[in-house]
Amino acid sequence: MTLHTRLAAAVLVVTTMSTPPTFGDEGMWLFNAPPLQALKERYNFTPTQAWLDHVQKSSVRFNSGGSGSFVSATGLVMTNHHVGADDLQKLSTPEKNYLRDGFRAKTPAEEIKCKALELNVLQSIKVVTDEVNAAVAPGLPAAEAFKARQAKIAEIEKANADPKKGVRADVVTLFAGGQYHLYVFKKYTDIRLVFAPEKDIAFFGGDPDNFEYPRFDLDICFFRVYEDDKPVKPEHYLTWSPAGSKEDELIFVSGHPGRTNRQNTVAELEYLRDTGYPYLLQRLNRLEVLIGSWSERTAQNRQRGEEELFGIKNSRKARIGGLQGLLDPKLMGRKVEEEKRLREFIAQGKFDGAADAAVAFDAVAKAEKKRAELIKDVTLFENGSAFNSGFFGIARTLLRATEEKAKPAGDRLREYAEARLPSLEFRLFSEEPHYDDFETLKLADSLTLLATSYGAGDPLVQKVLAGKSPRERAFELVSGTKVKDVDFRKKLYAGGKEAVDAAHDPMIELAQLVDAKSREVRKEFETLVDEPKRQAYSALAKARYAMNGASTYPDATFTLRLSFGTVKGFKEDGKDVPAFTTMDGLYERSKDQGNKDPFELPKRWVEKKDKLDLKTPFNFVSTADIIGGNSGSPVINKAGEVVGIIFDGNIQSLVLDFIYDQEQARAVSVDSRAIIESLRKVYEAGDLADELQGKAK
Amino acid sequence: MTLHTRLAAAVLVVTTMSTPPTFGDEGMWLFNAPPLQALKERYNFTPTQAWLDHVQKSSVRFNSGGSGSFVSATGLVMTNHHVGADDLQKLSTPEKNYLRDGFRAKTPAEEIKCKALELNVLQSIKVVTDEVNAAVAPGLPAAEAFKARQAKIAEIEKANADPKKGVRADVVTLFAGGQYHLYVFKKYTDIRLVFAPEKDIAFFGGDPDNFEYPRFDLDICFFRVYEDDKPVKPEHYLTWSPAGSKEDELIFVSGHPGRTNRQNTVAELEYLRDTGYPYLLQRLNRLEVLIGSWSERTAQNRQRGEEELFGIKNSRKARIGGLQGLLDPKLMGRKVEEEKRLREFIAQGKFDGAADAAVAFDAVAKAEKKRAELIKDVTLFENGSAFNSGFFGIARTLLRATEEKAKPAGDRLREYAEARLPSLEFRLFSEEPHYDDFETLKLADSLTLLATSYGAGDPLVQKVLAGKSPRERAFELVSGTKVKDVDFRKKLYAGGKEAVDAAHDPMIELAQLVDAKSREVRKEFETLVDEPKRQAYSALAKARYAMNGASTYPDATFTLRLSFGTVKGFKEDGKDVPAFTTMDGLYERSKDQGNKDPFELPKRWVEKKDKLDLKTPFNFVSTADIIGGNSGSPVINKAGEVVGIIFDGNIQSLVLDFIYDQEQARAVSVDSRAIIESLRKVYEAGDLADELQGKAK
Repeated sequence: MTLHTRLAAAVLVVTTMSTPPTFGDEGMWLFNAPPLQALKERYNFTPTQAWLDHVQKSSVRFNSGGSGSFVSATGLVMTNHHVGADDLQKLSTPEKNYLRDGFRAKTPAEEIKCKALELNVLQSIKVVTDEVNAAVAPGLPAAEAFKARQAKIAEIEKANADPKKGVRADVVTLFAGGQYHLYVFKKYTDIRLVFAPEKDIAFFGGDPDNFEYPRFDLDICFFRVYEDDKPVKPEHYLTWSPAGSKEDELIFVSGHPGRTNRQNTVAELEYLRDTGYPYLLQRLNRLEVLIGSWSERTAQNRQRGEEELFGIKNSRKARIGGLQGLLDPKLMGRKVEEEKRLREFIAQGKFDGAADAAVAFDAVAKAEKKRAELIKDVTLFENGSAFNSGFFGIARTLLRATEEKAKPAGDRLREYAEARLPSLEFRLFSEEPHYDDFETLKLADSLTLLATSYGAGDPLVQKVLAGKSPRERAFELVSGTKVKDVDFRKKLYAGGKEAVDAAHDPMIELAQLVDAKSREVRKEFETLVDEPKRQAYSALAKARYAMNGASTYPDATFTLRLSFGTVKGFKEDGKDVPAFTTMDGLYERSKDQGNKDPFELPKRWVEKKDKLDLKTPFNFVSTADIIGGNSGSPVINKAGEVVGIIFDGNIQSLVLDFIYDQEQARAVSVDSRAIIESLRKVYEAGDLADELQGKAK
Repeated sequence: MTLHTRLAAAVLVVTTMSTPPTFGDEGMWLFNAPPLQALKERYNFTPTQAWLDHVQKSSVRFNSGGSGSFVSATGLVMTNHHVGADDLQKLSTPEKNYLRDGFRAKTPAEEIKCKALELNVLQSIKVVTDEVNAAVAPGLPAAEAFKARQAKIAEIEKANADPKKGVRADVVTLFAGGQYHLYVFKKYTDIRLVFAPEKDIAFFGGDPDNFEYPRFDLDICFFRVYEDDKPVKPEHYLTWSPAGSKEDELIFVSGHPGRTNRQNTVAELEYLRDTGYPYLLQRLNRLEVLIGSWSERTAQNRQRGEEELFGIKNSRKARIGGLQGLLDPKLMGRKVEEEKRLREFIAQGKFDGAADAAVAFDAVAKAEKKRAELIKDVTLFENGSAFNSGFFGIARTLLRATEEKAKPAGDRLREYAEARLPSLEFRLFSEEPHYDDFETLKLADSLTLLATSYGAGDPLVQKVLAGKSPRERAFELVSGTKVKDVDFRKKLYAGGKEAVDAAHDPMIELAQLVDAKSREVRKEFETLVDEPKRQAYSALAKARYAMNGASTYPDATFTLRLSFGTVKGFKEDGKDVPAFTTMDGLYERSKDQGNKDPFELPKRWVEKKDKLDLKTPFNFVSTADIIGGNSGSPVINKAGEVVGIIFDGNIQSLVLDFIYDQEQARAVSVDSRAIIESLRKVYEAGDLADELQGKAK
């Protein structure tokens, strides 16, 4: 380092001191380290500990992967329709499709018990970092350190849990190991369905409006929590705001963001921007066109391809949103600045692990370079994108499972570890239907992708195609394989490698043909990309924690977080997109789209239009920092009252995986007033509205 | 060459002698060099000269780019609905949409005169190769040789044409200059519309069924030719087969295939297979998803994007079909064999130009390698795919036109040659509407493609994006440019380079920023790809002609050709696809698709269903060798009678651009019996059916 740079570094350190580590309304804050400073400075508001406790204990985690909240004295829980969808599906019968047609229990007796729904309510948080770290003697080799740490964590969890009383205890890892906190939950398992609207209004606009705004979705669902066959009377529940929210108002979101990658170095973001996302998007575009155009050929095709097509479109939109953010120099510039500050801090060397952190940036950059080199091989071979058929997946699982099971535990590929075999077997022997024509379509297209990726003259490609065109070869493989028969799979799985070899099944032979290459690229990826990055990011997390301490928030980990923000529209292509939509807008949008699927209104909504106050706010957006997992989170005001419920982000919010953006990224919520208006006037569920609004019956 | 190879070559020459240069039912044959040998050998049929003359003079060329035939004694001409579509559009008024709703003249007086339709009927062919070649003194430099040849051709054409009598004379170039033939036509310009069905039945199944089979389209249209305000009585017209065709029957197609590339060397086909088509398909997939998903957002979007989206889907299907063929080792193997024979023939050196031909294969291979290197630069910059907006196209035309017009004729880019300026100005000053939102969408996506193709850190990319995200930058450019104003364009065009520079229009400044790079890659492509290939293919065409002489057929050139084949189904994914569909199948397909667009039947077809004989054959496929331009060609039997009309190829036929395939490639026709059945029973046009069937009124 030259003197000149030293000086520059010194100046930067000064800058660091005066720059808060978060930006505007950024942050998915821990309840035991709330954003007091930012709230004070930006909004002149200081939540009391009682306020925080109340919100925390009113918040509910859905173990199926979403958020919710207690909203009545008698155990009513509010979440999104799409969070409850899985349970709605499971409760449905051939006669009663609750997912599609909705549900309403007119009396407590009509409330239906869910089959496998667990809700957790966070009761207390205790920092146990020192206790956990003390269990790991300095200088212990990595594997033993890992074991010692896990043992300590298990011990703490066991000491604090009380399964009989529904007390669950989790030690959660935060800041990538910078902190360990003990979360003690109250666990509920008797959850009953109270109300769900029709899917057509819950997900009005379907894929075209997914991730878009303005929006008009009544994405809500109500459950009731029971204990001892009686509704619970929760100590804390959120009351309903009489007025709802308004433009520029401060709001809070309490929920469970699933995962963010805000630690990503600039080198990794550049990889994603220039290589990873574009490559993935190419494949998503290709699949969307392939399955979309095939679906248009017949009604049967449409039905067979529907679910997969929706998943592809959803991913495509999400990735385009992320890419747009990565290509925004303002956002990327902030990442560069952040990284500069962190590098300077590390360079001062004033914390344990500074030496590891000092080489971490270069290690990530090197790994990302390797990742770009390997992306084609990994995607096409190990991820199987060149052999896009459920039958290939089954064939390879049979092949590998029988090979791996014969190995000692430590030598196996991780997905074949003893503990994972039951769920692997469950999937392998499931009767999930596959359709030969659809499998042939996808396999033929993916073999074409293989051939054009390496050139049709490539020796391995030629072996894979066996002298046939991709379409002929796909047809031969799909029509010839017996892995479509579950009994055949069971026989081979039980018979081991010998039985698999003896079967001479064409799809298994294909899996055998490409497995050497697949394993080779996987190993290269794990050794030269995954592992160096794991080490580097761990070192950087420690550095970041040393720099910022508890004045910031850790990456999302599906633990309870508090976000805050302002109800606020945004600018898109020079046009102002207002914060609120209204019920009027819903009818207008449906009409503009000819009332055709996915803009078709449920019958009830058409009939009850005249009864509604069409000026009622329907959905609104805010600057709150959210991500997948926040679905169903209550949106509350300073008084701790419900003003809405989170259900989506706009397309610009998809960058929140990497970085917070206040300019265009928005969280999308259902307005609390729309909930009351629809319950009362469309669903004639005045009793439920009364319960929410705390009115006596 | 070692002795061993010499021997091998000798053996191969023997093989050559016994292998006909064409394959099965291959060939788009000249009427003055018909496939007598193949017809004799394969079908034991020898058409007489009278038969050939009759078919030739019954055939009609549509100058708008299709084929047709005289089908009555009073000048009735049959073609496809999609060949007549342009004229149907031009004849339509806001009140009467003939293209969508169809048309029927109940009396001669109701027949409507077309606005700019010219039909040509080939009267005679004379070989003028020697005469043309004699005009070019040996050793003349290329440019002068070209001039001398053109002068001779003009002289021959002038001597044989008689515009006053409607006699048109064209000297056509065949075998890439191996032969010159004088084609004398009778020209007709008073063409009147007689009958067209609704577009919904003519193009039933729309994009989903485009290039697919089974098929159910009544893709027909009838005009009548007038002279001196009276229907012409053509010397030759095709009569209607009483029985129609049947499975395995020999049929002929007489029409005007537009363009084929069957001379392509294996190296060029490999380039297309491994690089060119996959790269293009990536872009088509991307655009289809972009515009398709945008179209779903609003009815207005749908309308604005509809035409472009259909074009993209059509290209995507066509390219996928071509790629499937190129990936078929059987087809590619035949190309390899063919090339081997030609190489051996050339190696014998027994013809003028053998030395040029001997180096031609390597020259093409080298050019294709360069082409692969340049594809990204050429596509994104010179083809403008990185700046996908009509406004960019206009800006660049203004920029380049004013620069090029200032240069001497010989130095200009070819599209700015003096002779081309009027049509360039016509397009540049057209009021064709552009929509800012649609332009922004496409430009933002293409700037994203630019950034991810070179990396967002690339210096030129950074200059293009000017510190903004692709979407922001696109919005700024589209909303800021004045080139959307036609008067502004006229002012700049008239004002020359100075005015263009002074305008400081953001879109023009973008065009200026990237023009150096664009011109550079264009020049590299023209010098290192285009020109070497032009020379090499010319040498190879001469070699091929020297080897095969008139025993084969030249690449398609929109001149009249005779194809032959068998009415025959095919196998697809192991399933037999029968040769014929029926009217029954039409109703079934519509029902299966919920009678929804594009499977919605016209009202008349729903009402008249009970009147129809539902067993009537509707469409059928045959092995005839056709390509774009053959649309509307009559399908005739050995007796020279009409049994159908060509309107499409299946997706497997899309490889016919490069190579004939008999196994799966099929020409798709409307069955003559379906035409009569619909005219009589759906359209109550018995008089028209009577005219076709030669029945007295």
